[in-house]
Amino acid sequence: MAQKQVAGPEIERLIQLLAKLPGLGPRSARRAALHLIKKKDQLLVPLSEAMGIAVRDIGICSVCGTVDTSDPCTICSDEKRDPSVLVVVEDVSDLWALERASAVNARYHVLGGTLSPLDGVGPDDLNLASLVDRCGAPEIQEVILAISATVEGQTTAHYIMDQLGHLDVHVTKLAHGVPVGGELDYLDEGTLAQALKARTRF
Amino acid sequence: MAQKQVAGPEIERLIQLLAKLPGLGPRSARRAALHLIKKKDQLLVPLSEAMGIAVRDIGICSVCGTVDTSDPCTICSDEKRDPSVLVVVEDVSDLWALERASAVNARYHVLGGTLSPLDGVGPDDLNLASLVDRCGAPEIQEVILAISATVEGQTTAHYIMDQLGHLDVHVTKLAHGVPVGGELDYLDEGTLAQALKARTRF
Repeated sequence: MAQKQVAGPEIERLIQLLAKLPGLGPRSARRAALHLIKKKDQLLVPLSEAMGIAVRDIGICSVCGTVDTSDPCTICSDEKRDPSVLVVVEDVSDLWALERASAVNARYHVLGGTLSPLDGVGPDDLNLASLVDRCGAPEIQEVILAISATVEGQTTAHYIMDQLGHLDVHVTKLAHGVPVGGELDYLDEGTLAQALKARTRF
Repeated sequence: MAQKQVAGPEIERLIQLLAKLPGLGPRSARRAALHLIKKKDQLLVPLSEAMGIAVRDIGICSVCGTVDTSDPCTICSDEKRDPSVLVVVEDVSDLWALERASAVNARYHVLGGTLSPLDGVGPDDLNLASLVDRCGAPEIQEVILAISATVEGQTTAHYIMDQLGHLDVHVTKLAHGVPVGGELDYLDEGTLAQALKARTRF
Protein backbone atom coordinates (compact mmCIF):
# COMPACT_ATOMS: atom_id res chain seq x y z
CA MET A 1 0.00 0.00 0.00
CA ALA A 2 1.02 3.59 -0.45
CA GLN A 3 3.09 5.07 2.34
CA LYS A 4 1.72 8.49 1.49
CA GLN A 5 -1.91 9.43 1.88
CA VAL A 6 -3.55 9.39 -1.56
CA ALA A 7 -7.04 10.37 -0.49
CA GLY A 8 -9.20 10.60 2.60
CA PRO A 9 -9.51 7.42 4.71
CA GLU A 10 -13.15 7.10 3.63
CA ILE A 11 -12.18 5.82 0.16
CA GLU A 12 -9.62 3.40 1.59
CA ARG A 13 -12.26 2.03 3.96
CA LEU A 14 -14.76 1.58 1.11
CA ILE A 15 -12.11 -0.36 -0.85
CA GLN A 16 -11.24 -2.55 2.15
CA LEU A 17 -14.89 -3.45 2.75
CA LEU A 18 -15.55 -4.16 -0.94
CA ALA A 19 -12.50 -6.45 -0.96
CA LYS A 20 -14.27 -8.68 1.58
CA LEU A 21 -16.98 -9.58 -0.94
CA PRO A 22 -16.57 -13.03 -2.50
CA GLY A 23 -15.26 -12.62 -6.05
CA LEU A 24 -13.49 -9.32 -5.38
CA GLY A 25 -9.84 -9.08 -4.38
CA PRO A 26 -7.88 -5.98 -3.29
CA ARG A 27 -7.21 -4.89 -6.88
CA SER A 28 -10.72 -5.44 -8.23
CA ALA A 29 -12.16 -3.82 -5.09
CA ARG A 30 -10.20 -0.69 -5.96
CA ARG A 31 -11.61 -0.77 -9.48
CA ALA A 32 -15.11 -1.32 -8.10
CA ALA A 33 -14.77 1.58 -5.65
CA LEU A 34 -13.58 3.93 -8.39
CA HIS A 35 -16.40 2.76 -10.65
CA LEU A 36 -18.90 3.45 -7.85
CA ILE A 37 -17.49 6.92 -7.17
CA LYS A 38 -17.48 7.83 -10.87
CA LYS A 39 -21.02 6.57 -11.40
CA LYS A 40 -22.26 8.26 -8.27
CA ASP A 41 -25.84 8.96 -9.35
CA GLN A 42 -26.35 5.86 -11.50
CA LEU A 43 -24.77 3.31 -9.15
CA LEU A 44 -23.36 4.51 -5.83
CA VAL A 45 -26.52 6.27 -4.66
CA PRO A 46 -28.93 3.42 -5.61
CA LEU A 47 -26.60 0.76 -4.20
CA SER A 48 -26.17 2.71 -0.99
CA GLU A 49 -29.95 2.99 -0.68
CA ALA A 50 -30.46 -0.71 -1.50
CA MET A 51 -27.96 -1.62 1.23
CA GLY A 52 -29.64 0.69 3.70
CA ILE A 53 -32.94 -1.04 2.97
CA ALA A 54 -31.26 -4.44 3.29
CA VAL A 55 -29.81 -3.51 6.68
CA ARG A 56 -33.20 -2.33 7.89
CA ASP A 57 -35.58 -4.89 6.37
CA ILE A 58 -33.89 -8.18 5.54
CA GLY A 59 -34.07 -10.89 8.15
CA ILE A 60 -34.34 -14.65 8.58
CA CYS A 61 -37.72 -16.33 8.00
CA SER A 62 -38.76 -17.83 11.33
CA VAL A 63 -40.47 -20.75 9.54
CA CYS A 64 -37.99 -21.96 6.91
CA GLY A 65 -34.77 -20.08 7.66
CA THR A 66 -34.33 -18.32 4.32
CA VAL A 67 -33.55 -14.59 4.03
CA ASP A 68 -36.31 -12.18 3.08
CA THR A 69 -37.81 -8.82 3.89
CA SER A 70 -40.99 -10.39 5.24
CA ASP A 71 -41.47 -12.97 7.98
CA PRO A 72 -42.87 -15.54 7.17
CA CYS A 73 -41.02 -15.21 3.87
CA THR A 74 -42.50 -14.83 0.38
CA ILE A 75 -42.27 -18.59 -0.26
CA CYS A 76 -43.71 -19.70 3.09
CA SER A 77 -46.68 -17.37 2.65
CA ASP A 78 -47.23 -18.31 -1.03
CA GLU A 79 -50.65 -20.03 -1.04
CA LYS A 80 -50.07 -21.58 -4.48
CA ARG A 81 -47.34 -23.92 -3.29
CA ASP A 82 -47.93 -27.60 -2.57
CA PRO A 83 -48.39 -27.80 1.22
CA SER A 84 -47.67 -31.54 1.33
CA VAL A 85 -44.02 -31.32 0.23
CA LEU A 86 -41.03 -29.92 2.10
CA VAL A 87 -37.64 -29.51 0.38
CA VAL A 88 -34.66 -29.56 2.76
CA VAL A 89 -31.62 -27.58 1.56
CA GLU A 90 -28.29 -26.73 3.16
CA ASP A 91 -28.20 -23.07 2.30
CA VAL A 92 -30.22 -20.16 0.97
CA SER A 93 -28.13 -20.28 -2.22
CA ASP A 94 -29.39 -23.84 -2.85
CA LEU A 95 -32.97 -22.67 -2.35
CA TRP A 96 -32.38 -19.89 -4.89
CA ALA A 97 -30.80 -22.37 -7.34
CA LEU A 98 -33.82 -24.72 -7.13
CA GLU A 99 -36.19 -21.78 -7.57
CA ARG A 100 -34.26 -20.53 -10.61
CA ALA A 101 -34.62 -23.99 -12.12
CA SER A 102 -38.38 -23.88 -11.29
CA ALA A 103 -37.71 -27.45 -10.24
CA VAL A 104 -40.36 -27.83 -7.56
CA ASN A 105 -43.42 -25.90 -6.42
CA ALA A 106 -43.16 -26.51 -2.70
CA ARG A 107 -41.88 -24.91 0.45
CA TYR A 108 -38.35 -25.21 1.80
CA HIS A 109 -36.42 -25.75 4.99
CA VAL A 110 -32.93 -24.23 5.17
CA LEU A 111 -30.58 -26.17 7.47
CA GLY A 112 -27.88 -23.52 7.49
CA GLY A 113 -25.07 -25.98 6.80
CA THR A 114 -24.23 -29.66 7.16
CA LEU A 115 -23.16 -31.76 10.12
CA SER A 116 -19.39 -31.59 10.34
CA PRO A 117 -17.90 -32.83 13.63
CA LEU A 118 -14.40 -31.79 12.54
CA ASP A 119 -15.54 -28.18 12.16
CA GLY A 120 -17.54 -28.38 15.38
CA VAL A 121 -20.92 -28.28 13.64
CA GLY A 122 -23.32 -30.51 15.54
CA PRO A 123 -27.10 -31.06 15.29
CA ASP A 124 -27.81 -28.09 17.57
CA ASP A 125 -26.04 -25.72 15.18
CA LEU A 126 -28.46 -26.51 12.33
CA ASN A 127 -32.20 -25.86 11.98
CA LEU A 128 -32.95 -29.50 12.71
CA ALA A 129 -35.37 -29.27 15.65
CA SER A 130 -37.68 -26.96 13.69
CA LEU A 131 -37.48 -29.36 10.73
CA VAL A 132 -38.74 -32.26 12.86
CA ASP A 133 -41.49 -29.99 14.18
CA ARG A 134 -42.59 -28.97 10.69
CA CYS A 135 -42.49 -32.54 9.36
CA GLY A 136 -44.85 -33.58 12.16
CA ALA A 137 -47.64 -31.42 10.72
CA PRO A 138 -50.47 -33.58 9.31
CA GLU A 139 -50.36 -32.01 5.80
CA ILE A 140 -46.71 -32.99 5.12
CA GLN A 141 -46.48 -36.18 3.07
CA GLU A 142 -43.05 -35.97 1.46
CA VAL A 143 -39.71 -34.54 2.59
CA ILE A 144 -37.20 -34.14 -0.25
CA LEU A 145 -33.58 -34.03 0.94
CA ALA A 146 -31.92 -31.74 -1.63
CA ILE A 147 -28.53 -31.97 0.07
CA SER A 148 -25.07 -32.08 -1.51
CA ALA A 149 -23.65 -35.49 -2.42
CA THR A 150 -20.64 -34.86 -0.20
CA VAL A 151 -19.66 -36.88 2.86
CA GLU A 152 -20.98 -34.16 5.20
CA GLY A 153 -24.16 -33.77 3.14
CA GLN A 154 -24.87 -37.49 3.16
CA THR A 155 -24.11 -37.74 6.90
CA THR A 156 -26.62 -34.97 7.47
CA ALA A 157 -29.18 -36.74 5.25
CA HIS A 158 -28.81 -39.97 7.24
CA TYR A 159 -29.17 -38.06 10.51
CA ILE A 160 -32.38 -36.43 9.24
CA MET A 161 -33.68 -39.85 8.15
CA ASP A 162 -33.15 -41.10 11.71
CA GLN A 163 -34.89 -38.08 13.21
CA LEU A 164 -37.91 -38.44 10.93
CA GLY A 165 -38.12 -42.21 11.25
CA HIS A 166 -41.05 -42.15 13.69
CA LEU A 167 -43.14 -39.85 11.45
CA ASP A 168 -45.53 -40.90 8.71
CA VAL A 169 -43.73 -39.08 5.85
CA HIS A 170 -41.92 -40.24 2.72
CA VAL A 171 -38.30 -39.08 2.79
CA THR A 172 -36.76 -38.88 -0.69
CA LYS A 173 -33.41 -37.72 -2.06
CA LEU A 174 -32.22 -36.28 -5.37
CA ALA A 175 -31.30 -38.72 -8.14
CA HIS A 176 -27.65 -39.31 -8.98
CA GLY A 177 -26.66 -39.42 -12.63
CA VAL A 178 -25.12 -37.74 -15.63
CA PRO A 179 -25.60 -33.93 -15.53
CA VAL A 180 -27.63 -32.61 -18.46
CA GLY A 181 -25.11 -31.49 -21.08
CA GLY A 182 -22.36 -33.42 -19.31
CA GLU A 183 -19.78 -35.55 -21.16
CA LEU A 184 -19.24 -39.08 -19.84
CA ASP A 185 -15.50 -38.73 -20.34
CA TYR A 186 -15.25 -36.08 -17.65
CA LEU A 187 -17.44 -37.77 -15.04
CA ASP A 188 -16.06 -39.53 -12.02
CA GLU A 189 -16.48 -43.28 -11.54
CA GLY A 190 -18.98 -42.93 -8.68
CA THR A 191 -21.38 -40.86 -10.78
CA LEU A 192 -21.07 -43.22 -13.75
CA ALA A 193 -21.72 -46.27 -11.56
CA GLN A 194 -24.79 -44.61 -10.02
CA ALA A 195 -26.06 -43.50 -13.45
CA LEU A 196 -25.76 -47.05 -14.78
CA LYS A 197 -27.42 -48.59 -11.73
CA ALA A 198 -30.36 -46.18 -12.01
CA ARG A 199 -30.68 -46.52 -15.81
CA THR A 200 -34.17 -46.08 -17.27
CA ARG A 201 -35.93 -47.47 -20.37
CA PHE A 202 -35.28 -45.33 -23.49
CA MET B 1 -34.60 -15.76 -13.78
CA ALA B 2 -37.21 -17.44 -11.65
CA GLN B 3 -40.78 -17.01 -12.74
CA LYS B 4 -41.92 -17.29 -9.16
CA GLN B 5 -41.07 -14.75 -6.51
CA VAL B 6 -38.31 -16.16 -4.31
CA ALA B 7 -37.97 -13.21 -1.97
CA GLY B 8 -38.91 -9.58 -1.66
CA PRO B 9 -37.87 -7.30 -4.56
CA GLU B 10 -35.34 -5.60 -2.27
CA ILE B 11 -32.94 -8.56 -2.46
CA GLU B 12 -33.32 -8.84 -6.23
CA ARG B 13 -32.55 -5.12 -6.58
CA LEU B 14 -29.45 -5.45 -4.39
CA ILE B 15 -28.24 -8.32 -6.60
CA GLN B 16 -28.90 -6.37 -9.80
CA LEU B 17 -26.96 -3.35 -8.55
CA LEU B 18 -24.04 -5.46 -7.30
CA ALA B 19 -23.90 -7.13 -10.74
CA LYS B 20 -23.06 -3.75 -12.26
CA LEU B 21 -19.75 -3.61 -10.40
CA PRO B 22 -16.71 -4.44 -12.54
CA GLY B 23 -15.54 -7.94 -11.69
CA LEU B 24 -18.96 -9.21 -10.58
CA GLY B 25 -21.38 -10.98 -12.91
CA PRO B 26 -24.98 -12.01 -12.21
CA ARG B 27 -23.94 -15.22 -10.46
CA SER B 28 -21.17 -13.75 -8.32
CA ALA B 29 -23.41 -10.78 -7.49
CA ARG B 30 -25.92 -13.24 -6.03
CA ARG B 31 -23.16 -14.84 -3.96
CA ALA B 32 -21.98 -11.42 -2.84
CA ALA B 33 -25.51 -10.35 -1.86
CA LEU B 34 -26.05 -13.52 0.17
CA HIS B 35 -22.64 -13.07 1.81
CA LEU B 36 -23.59 -9.49 2.71
CA ILE B 37 -26.94 -10.52 4.16
CA LYS B 38 -25.41 -13.35 6.18
CA LYS B 39 -22.62 -11.14 7.52
CA LYS B 40 -25.00 -8.35 8.32
CA ASP B 41 -23.19 -6.85 11.30
CA GLN B 42 -19.63 -7.54 10.15
CA LEU B 43 -20.01 -6.47 6.51
CA LEU B 44 -23.40 -5.21 5.32
CA VAL B 45 -23.80 -2.54 8.00
CA PRO B 46 -20.22 -1.14 7.70
CA LEU B 47 -20.33 -1.23 3.89
CA SER B 48 -23.71 0.48 3.85
CA GLU B 49 -22.31 3.19 6.13
CA ALA B 50 -19.13 3.56 4.06
CA MET B 51 -21.26 4.01 0.95
CA GLY B 52 -23.47 6.56 2.66
CA ILE B 53 -20.35 8.52 3.61
CA ALA B 54 -19.04 8.19 0.05
CA VAL B 55 -22.32 9.51 -1.37
CA ARG B 56 -22.24 12.45 1.01
CA ASP B 57 -18.56 13.37 1.08
CA ILE B 58 -16.64 12.19 -1.97
CA GLY B 59 -16.29 14.65 -4.82
CA ILE B 60 -13.92 15.76 -7.56
CA CYS B 61 -10.90 17.91 -6.61
CA SER B 62 -11.36 21.24 -8.36
CA VAL B 63 -7.58 21.58 -8.83
CA CYS B 64 -6.37 18.22 -10.18
CA GLY B 65 -9.56 16.27 -10.93
CA THR B 66 -8.99 13.27 -8.64
CA VAL B 67 -11.65 11.94 -6.27
CA ASP B 68 -11.43 12.71 -2.57
CA THR B 69 -13.44 13.76 0.44
CA SER B 70 -11.71 17.15 0.62
CA ASP B 71 -11.38 19.87 -2.02
CA PRO B 72 -8.54 20.65 -2.76
CA CYS B 73 -7.68 16.97 -2.36
CA THR B 74 -5.21 15.39 0.07
CA ILE B 75 -2.44 15.39 -2.54
CA CYS B 76 -3.00 18.95 -3.79
CA SER B 77 -2.93 20.26 -0.23
CA ASP B 78 0.12 18.14 0.78
CA GLU B 79 2.84 20.73 1.48
CA LYS B 80 5.62 18.11 1.35
CA ARG B 81 5.23 17.51 -2.39
CA ASP B 82 7.54 19.03 -4.98
CA PRO B 83 5.66 22.09 -6.30
CA SER B 84 7.74 22.31 -9.48
CA VAL B 85 6.57 19.02 -11.03
CA LEU B 86 3.14 18.12 -12.41
CA VAL B 87 2.32 14.53 -13.41
CA VAL B 88 -0.41 14.23 -16.05
CA VAL B 89 -2.43 10.99 -15.91
CA GLU B 90 -5.46 9.73 -17.81
CA ASP B 91 -7.45 8.49 -14.87
CA VAL B 92 -7.67 8.40 -11.09
CA SER B 93 -6.69 4.72 -11.20
CA ASP B 94 -3.35 5.70 -12.82
CA LEU B 95 -2.78 8.28 -10.09
CA TRP B 96 -3.42 5.58 -7.47
CA ALA B 97 -1.05 3.19 -9.27
CA LEU B 98 1.77 5.76 -9.30
CA GLU B 99 1.18 6.55 -5.64
CA ARG B 100 1.23 2.85 -4.71
CA ALA B 101 4.59 2.61 -6.45
CA SER B 102 5.76 5.72 -4.52
CA ALA B 103 7.21 6.62 -7.89
CA VAL B 104 7.11 10.38 -7.65
CA ASN B 105 6.56 12.94 -4.92
CA ALA B 106 4.68 15.54 -6.90
CA ARG B 107 1.17 16.69 -7.65
CA TYR B 108 -1.05 15.32 -10.40
CA HIS B 109 -3.47 16.38 -13.08
CA VAL B 110 -6.18 13.90 -14.05
CA LEU B 111 -7.31 14.28 -17.68
CA GLY B 112 -10.35 12.05 -17.31
CA GLY B 113 -9.56 10.04 -20.46
CA THR B 114 -7.74 10.34 -23.77
CA LEU B 115 -8.58 12.07 -27.03
CA SER B 116 -10.56 9.65 -29.14
CA PRO B 117 -12.35 11.21 -32.14
CA LEU B 118 -14.02 7.87 -32.99
CA ASP B 119 -15.67 7.80 -29.56
CA GLY B 120 -16.49 11.49 -29.77
CA VAL B 121 -13.99 12.50 -27.08
CA GLY B 122 -12.52 15.89 -28.05
CA PRO B 123 -10.24 18.33 -26.16
CA ASP B 124 -13.24 19.97 -24.48
CA ASP B 125 -14.23 16.65 -22.87
CA LEU B 126 -10.94 16.38 -20.96
CA ASN B 127 -9.44 18.55 -18.21
CA LEU B 128 -7.08 20.20 -20.71
CA ALA B 129 -7.86 23.90 -20.26
CA SER B 130 -7.19 23.68 -16.52
CA LEU B 131 -3.94 21.80 -17.26
CA VAL B 132 -2.67 24.67 -19.46
CA ASP B 133 -3.69 27.11 -16.71
CA ARG B 134 -1.81 25.18 -14.02
CA CYS B 135 1.30 24.74 -16.18
CA GLY B 136 1.42 28.53 -16.63
CA ALA B 137 2.12 29.01 -12.92
CA PRO B 138 5.68 30.25 -12.34
CA GLU B 139 6.67 27.41 -9.94
CA ILE B 140 6.03 24.63 -12.50
CA GLN B 141 9.26 23.52 -14.18
CA GLU B 142 8.47 20.01 -15.41
CA VAL B 143 5.33 18.33 -16.71
CA ILE B 144 5.56 14.53 -16.80
CA LEU B 145 3.12 12.93 -19.24
CA ALA B 146 2.35 9.57 -17.57
CA ILE B 147 -0.05 8.55 -20.29
CA SER B 148 -0.64 5.08 -21.80
CA ALA B 149 1.50 4.03 -24.74
CA THR B 150 -1.61 3.48 -26.85
CA VAL B 151 -2.52 5.35 -30.03
CA GLU B 152 -5.09 7.47 -28.17
CA GLY B 153 -2.68 8.07 -25.31
CA GLN B 154 0.12 9.20 -27.62
CA THR B 155 -2.26 11.41 -29.61
CA THR B 156 -3.29 13.05 -26.36
CA ALA B 157 0.37 13.48 -25.35
CA HIS B 158 1.17 15.20 -28.64
CA TYR B 159 -1.84 17.46 -28.29
CA ILE B 160 -0.70 18.46 -24.79
CA MET B 161 2.82 19.13 -26.12
CA ASP B 162 1.30 21.53 -28.67
CA GLN B 163 -0.79 23.28 -26.03
CA LEU B 164 2.18 23.74 -23.70
CA GLY B 165 4.63 24.76 -26.45
CA HIS B 166 4.49 28.46 -25.61
CA LEU B 167 5.22 27.88 -21.91
CA ASP B 168 8.63 27.68 -20.29
CA VAL B 169 8.27 24.12 -18.92
CA HIS B 170 10.06 20.85 -19.65
CA VAL B 171 7.58 18.28 -20.90
CA THR B 172 8.79 14.71 -20.34
CA LYS B 173 7.29 11.27 -20.90
CA LEU B 174 7.71 7.84 -19.31
CA ALA B 175 10.55 5.63 -20.58
CA HIS B 176 9.76 2.66 -22.79
CA GLY B 177 11.54 -0.58 -22.08
CA VAL B 178 11.45 -4.08 -20.65
CA PRO B 179 9.08 -4.31 -17.65
CA VAL B 180 10.86 -5.26 -14.42
CA GLY B 181 10.51 -9.02 -14.10
CA GLY B 182 9.49 -9.30 -17.76
CA GLU B 183 10.83 -12.02 -20.07
CA LEU B 184 12.17 -10.87 -23.44
CA ASP B 185 10.53 -13.81 -25.14
CA TYR B 186 7.06 -12.51 -24.38
CA LEU B 187 7.63 -8.85 -25.32
CA ASP B 188 6.40 -7.31 -28.55
CA GLU B 189 8.84 -6.06 -31.20
CA GLY B 190 8.05 -2.38 -30.56
CA THR B 191 9.00 -2.60 -26.90
CA LEU B 192 12.17 -4.56 -27.68
CA ALA B 193 13.23 -2.03 -30.32
CA GLN B 194 12.65 0.87 -27.93
CA ALA B 195 14.47 -0.91 -25.11
CA LEU B 196 17.50 -1.49 -27.36
CA LYS B 197 17.50 2.09 -28.62
CA ALA B 198 17.39 3.47 -25.08
CA ARG B 199 20.00 1.03 -23.71
CA THR B 200 22.16 2.26 -20.85
CA ARG B 201 25.71 1.45 -19.70
CA PHE B 202 25.82 -1.56 -17.31
